[in-house]
Formats: sequence, structure tokens, C-alpha cells
Amino acid sequence: MEKYLKKEELVSMEQRKRTTLINSVTGFKSLNLIATINKTLQANVAIFNSVIHLGADPALMGFIVRPDSVARHTLTNILETGFFTINHVNFYIYKNSHQTSARYPQEVSEFDACNLTADYKNDFPAPYVKESIIQIGLQFRERIKIELNGTNLVIGEIQQLYFPEEYWREDGYLDIEKAATMAGSGLDGYHITGLKERLRYAKATSEEV
Amino acid sequence: MEKYLKKEELVSMEQRKRTTLINSVTGFKSLNLIATINKTLQANVAIFNSVIHLGADPALMGFIVRPDSVARHTLTNILETGFFTINHVNFYIYKNSHQTSARYPQEVSEFDACNLTADYKNDFPAPYVKESIIQIGLQFRERIKIELNGTNLVIGEIQQLYFPEEYWREDGYLDIEKAATMAGSGLDGYHITGLKERLRYAKATSEEV
Repeated sequence: MEKYLKKEELVSMEQRKRTTLINSVTGFKSLNLIATINKTLQANVAIFNSVIHLGADPALMGFIVRPDSVARHTLTNILETGFFTINHVNFYIYKNSHQTSARYPQEVSEFDACNLTADYKNDFPAPYVKESIIQIGLQFRERIKIELNGTNLVIGEIQQLYFPEEYWREDGYLDIEKAATMAGSGLDGYHITGLKERLRYAKATSEEV
Repeated sequence: MEKYLKKEELVSMEQRKRTTLINSVTGFKSLNLIATINKTLQANVAIFNSVIHLGADPALMGFIVRPDSVARHTLTNILETGFFTINHVNFYIYKNSHQTSARYPQEVSEFDACNLTADYKNDFPAPYVKESIIQIGLQFRERIKIELNGTNLVIGEIQQLYFPEEYWREDGYLDIEKAATMAGSGLDGYHITGLKERLRYAKATSEEV
């Protein structure tokens, strides 16, 4: 049975129910841990489901953060230090990763509270998450304020990249499924994936599908 | 074996290989068909893997489009008419959906070329994709230019929402996996998913994980 909701019905829906529904309708989401340090070198890590690809040349990634959210220290630290890391959430750490969304006192590092390990390597000025199999080090490039609802798009440029060589294909494709990377749905759904297929570059002259 | 790539190695990598790699490292992506019409009522539909949730109140969604890309008519049409629809790519239409990324002549509608059906309903001024199981009608709100690489973040507000009622849970969660929604990887990977679990709202007082 098809359900049809108009804007007016969405607006009048109980707030948490609406938030959960609207968070479901974008489709599947990336799940990443973003790690930073503050001026006093205290490490912070928080889960984000809004990391997106912005471009390959320069190699830019972005994510959305709300200044009043639990994850606000991520933004503060990035603006303070200019660096952050993005680390894929995988099958072995999805519970730990989810737990980073709890509201810990500022003096508590989520690394300790959630049983994750801060990994400092190759002189990068932000910690990686050791348990993550695909890790990306970025330099902060721009913060774009979205006035419509007070959120921010934070953009960084890739400086370092770590991944298992055996999952890297000849054409550049990295098989993130093999690295146990998970996909998210709504605010709290954690999914494993099964590759159906990789499709060839589409041409207008292809046979009709 | 862990592969470590520095920025300098990324910059010097063959362009298509770098693009494919950088597109893989964000994690899983949403897969959606965005449908529009132009002033002469010709329908357009194109696949996007950058749709994200921006906020629930107001209900805002965004996506990234490059003005010189194959999908540039999507942006032109949205600026012309003020409306667009977002339709989940599912298991039954992923090949048709992928085919919309081909560079068709402007007078050809991808709906016809890719064997998809434009569905006009409830007076909405943009077509839905009939074969899509979860469909969202949006009004254009803002276009934010990202000067770093010339892309655009296009933001719309949800006006209409269609989904199977039997997949809607009491708390508002919509089980998109049950609706055969797929997840994307890289530029061409199509994945089905398996829900591992939905986790409870995380509290700082929870037992250690």
C-alpha cells in the first residue's frame, strides 16, 4: 500500500518520528569516524553519516556538521588545528563507532570511552582510528555555512591515504566491501553489503536496457 | 599489505585511475534518480550518488552537481522550474538507472532511452520515476557554489513523499532495504544490503563496548 505524505503532514508529525523518517529517505549513507585533536592534544572521534565525495582533482571530501550537535567539537578542533582524518566504519567496530555519538564530558576522549585506538603516523597532525581498515588524512580547506538551517559543509583535501593493497583494482577501484566497510540507513541502521555488479561506462549507443 | 599514498602520489596518478580511487574512499553512497522537466515540458532523469540529508526541520536534502557534467541539464531545469524529484535506485532498475549517465542528445529524454517511466501525480510540477519504490518531491531552495572546484550544492525542501506503508516502522524509520534500495561504491559499483542491526540511541553511561 503506497503511503503519500504532504509537506503539511510532515510538518505536523511528532518531531523524533519526522527526524527518523527524513533521515531514512536519502537512501544509504556512508559511515565514517572523523578524528581530530584540540590545542592541548586531546583526541576526539565521532561518527558521521554525511561524508561525501566532492571532487578528485583536487581530491576533496566534505561532511555536514551542526554547530550545536554532539559532534560540535569535531568542527572546533578542525578550525583550531586545520587537520582531520576520515576512517571507514567496518563490521568489526560498528558498535564502538555508534557509541561515539554519546554526549561525553569534554575532558573524556571518545577513543578511550569507546575502546578505539588513536594512531599517530607519518607526522600527520591528527590521529587515525587504528581499527579502521581504510583511513584518510585531510587538510581543512573551507567551511560553508548553510543559512537555511544553520548547518555547515566542511571541506578537506586528501593528504594521506591508507588501504589494503589487495583490495585495490587495476583501474583504481577500491573494493571497500572487501574491507568490511558498512553502509548506514536512517540514524541507527548498520548494513553489510553484497556487490551485485560493477557496470561499464554508459554510452548513448548502448543496447536498450 | 597496507598501501600508503601521499598527496604527491595522488596528484601524479593517471587521471581516470585517481578519479576512480578517490570516488571509492568516501564509503558507500546513496543512489538516486533525479527527475526534472524543462520549460518546454521535456522530461529529464539522471543518476546521482551524492544525495545527502541536510536537516529534518525544515526537511532539506542536497546533492552535488558539476556545471559541465553530463547531468548539467538537471541543474538547468531545476533553476528554470524550481522543482525536482529524488527517486531511490532499486534492485529492479539499477541497470536502467546506470544507463541514464550516458551522454544523450538534448532532445532525447533519458526516460525513453533508458526504459523508465515518467509519472506525473498530485499536481507536482516534476515527474517521478514510476519504477522507483521510494519517491520524493522537492522545491528548490538554494544553490551554493563551491569555489574550490566549481561544483554546486543544490538544496531542496521536501514537499511530497511516497513509500510503501508496510516498510514504515512505528518510530518513523523507513526500511529502505525492504524496498530494494541499493547502495553505491566508487563510480559503478551496485550493492544490495543486509541489515546487521539497528542500534539504540547511544548514552555516555552505557556499558563499555
